[in-house]
Amino acid sequence: MKLSSRITHITGGGSDGWSVHYRALALKASGAPVTLLSMGEHDTRTDPSILAAMDAAARGGNTGYSPVPGFPSLRKAVAARIERQTGVPTGPDNVIIVPGGQAALFAAHHAVCDPGDTAVFIDPYYATYPGTIRAVGAVPRAVLAHADNGFQPLRADLDAAAKGAKSLLVNSPNNPTGAVYSEQTMHDIADVCRDNDLWLISDEVYDTQVWDGTHISPRALPGMAERTLIVNSMSKSHAMTGSRVGWVCGPAEVIHAIHNLATHNTYGVAGFVQDAALFALGQGAAAEEAVAAPFRRRRQIVMDALAGQNAVRAAPISGAMYAMLDVRATGMSGEDFANALLDAELIGVMPGESFGAGGAGHIRVAMTVADDLLADALRRIASFAGTLVR
Amino acid sequence: MKLSSRITHITGGGSDGWSVHYRALALKASGAPVTLLSMGEHDTRTDPSILAAMDAAARGGNTGYSPVPGFPSLRKAVAARIERQTGVPTGPDNVIIVPGGQAALFAAHHAVCDPGDTAVFIDPYYATYPGTIRAVGAVPRAVLAHADNGFQPLRADLDAAAKGAKSLLVNSPNNPTGAVYSEQTMHDIADVCRDNDLWLISDEVYDTQVWDGTHISPRALPGMAERTLIVNSMSKSHAMTGSRVGWVCGPAEVIHAIHNLATHNTYGVAGFVQDAALFALGQGAAAEEAVAAPFRRRRQIVMDALAGQNAVRAAPISGAMYAMLDVRATGMSGEDFANALLDAELIGVMPGESFGAGGAGHIRVAMTVADDLLADALRRIASFAGTLVR
Repeated sequence: MKLSSRITHITGGGSDGWSVHYRALALKASGAPVTLLSMGEHDTRTDPSILAAMDAAARGGNTGYSPVPGFPSLRKAVAARIERQTGVPTGPDNVIIVPGGQAALFAAHHAVCDPGDTAVFIDPYYATYPGTIRAVGAVPRAVLAHADNGFQPLRADLDAAAKGAKSLLVNSPNNPTGAVYSEQTMHDIADVCRDNDLWLISDEVYDTQVWDGTHISPRALPGMAERTLIVNSMSKSHAMTGSRVGWVCGPAEVIHAIHNLATHNTYGVAGFVQDAALFALGQGAAAEEAVAAPFRRRRQIVMDALAGQNAVRAAPISGAMYAMLDVRATGMSGEDFANALLDAELIGVMPGESFGAGGAGHIRVAMTVADDLLADALRRIASFAGTLVR
Repeated sequence: MKLSSRITHITGGGSDGWSVHYRALALKASGAPVTLLSMGEHDTRTDPSILAAMDAAARGGNTGYSPVPGFPSLRKAVAARIERQTGVPTGPDNVIIVPGGQAALFAAHHAVCDPGDTAVFIDPYYATYPGTIRAVGAVPRAVLAHADNGFQPLRADLDAAAKGAKSLLVNSPNNPTGAVYSEQTMHDIADVCRDNDLWLISDEVYDTQVWDGTHISPRALPGMAERTLIVNSMSKSHAMTGSRVGWVCGPAEVIHAIHNLATHNTYGVAGFVQDAALFALGQGAAAEEAVAAPFRRRRQIVMDALAGQNAVRAAPISGAMYAMLDVRATGMSGEDFANALLDAELIGVMPGESFGAGGAGHIRVAMTVADDLLADALRRIASFAGTLVR
């Protein structure tokens, strides 16, 4: 029996560089003292106060169907947060609640790309980006963001890729690179979208994790609100990865269309989860900063541990929970280095190549283990790399 | 800015017969004593023991990412339930957990239909069916199930529709008709699928609500396991509509493909919701029967209330939580009757036409209000219809 060609082509064939991650997981499961720096998830759990709000909602009877686009209260709270960030008037009609950031990425691309349309994304990229584009039947086109430019995409490269495309997907603060797009980069992106009549899909799931510079949502830029779809979620900002709750924000007619998709795809988000999210958002910026604080601290730990050597060089860690380390001085690819590091030091990291060609010669370190473990691992990574430099 | 043609065409234009439902809701909201028989949802909430299991899981730390295809324990429990129902060996690799029955319908069609492919469904139909097919870029084709045949589709009609199609979607026990497909009907369906090399998508969300006859899953029929995708959820069987947890069951290679889609669409189901579902399934058949019991009781109430008159005739209420009532003796369409009934008696029902051409001249009564309210409403419906018969 034949499956759809679309579903069988969501992921490309060939090695994707994840084998070292699975090898590290297997080693750890077998009892080896592996330090896993490959998981993009907090080492803390969802705050008990948020879980209490969820339980109260469920026991209070919020266990039936909820409105497909989300409760008006939550849509309003999300809209208010976005209006505070962007200064752009934003109401509940500009927001639809969906089951997580990935669902938001899927919905946004479904809304603007027909089968065969070209959708642009930046490489290095979060693992699901090209597959999400293929899952809606569109054709992914990568723009390289060069390590030597701090992984900020260049105007000329964006312009070249924009020809004939329907959409551009950006992610700042960025996973995997830790880049936070500068004002110049964001203005370049906006110009390219306006010049080429592109939709801009802006994945802002790390918006609370900015260590250097400022988070700029392109919704805030002149003439961009009408063509920007913000993708965001409670996962990274509130350590609610497992709750699967996020949103798309954009023009009301797009939200209306995505509501229609949601009716036929996911049929809304659990009401008790929405109530938990509403409670969490109500705790304000201090609660978000508390979740972000470990990564702010660890970013300094990484920089300190790598000081005074040149075998491993960190790209600017401006935001998010990752450090992208340049290991090209060792003469090895990111994948070879990651494999050798796992063998020699029992440290698991992601090869840069697993995030696309732009990550070649790098490894990604997730700052998602305790401070002392992280400091020790980084010192050992630097020392190991030092033995390899010729 | 132009949206995708696919998303803007998910729902067709024109009246869909839901206006009377929205009018009833508005009347009730304004304070009028409207009896709402239009909601397809239990009048009870999720059992507190299930909510306690969910809370325990969340507080126990199950708030991080869970495996995209679901926890092995839940996949195994679902597989065991399906093996008990069908006698077909079924393992965790045959099951993927998704956020609800609608997500399962979407995933199943995405897996087997490419853009432009034809997907067949039976009319009268659950509201989202044609839109789900259009949302994956496929083309819906309806097969009429005639009231005079107890809303069971006929072999000849199925055969005619199957030509050149990729899939057939069936739903037994049926919403909105209350039909439970006979052994003959199910064998006809299986024959047509085999003869025309169709995938069969079998929506079995009402499998615990069978009042007459037996639930037959087509997975159990000869040669059908390899081409059948079962869609099911915890919504109707365990009054967990709001929890958004369901599954697709089928050949391992299809489940593998849908896992790939899920990675790029919904990225798994909340772990604490999965733990709640696992607990609920562990309560066995008695718990399922307890959730179904009110509808079993009310089905008799409906039949008793309609006895001794001919103005309104109930189609056989063999399963699910609905009664499809033939009002053609009044000379009115279902929609006109529903509107007149709301005006005269403050009773809200769904016009049969809102479920497709096959529902013409009928109204759908959801047996989702307290017994005495239901009995009174049915007597008033019959009496009102009696005044209209010429």
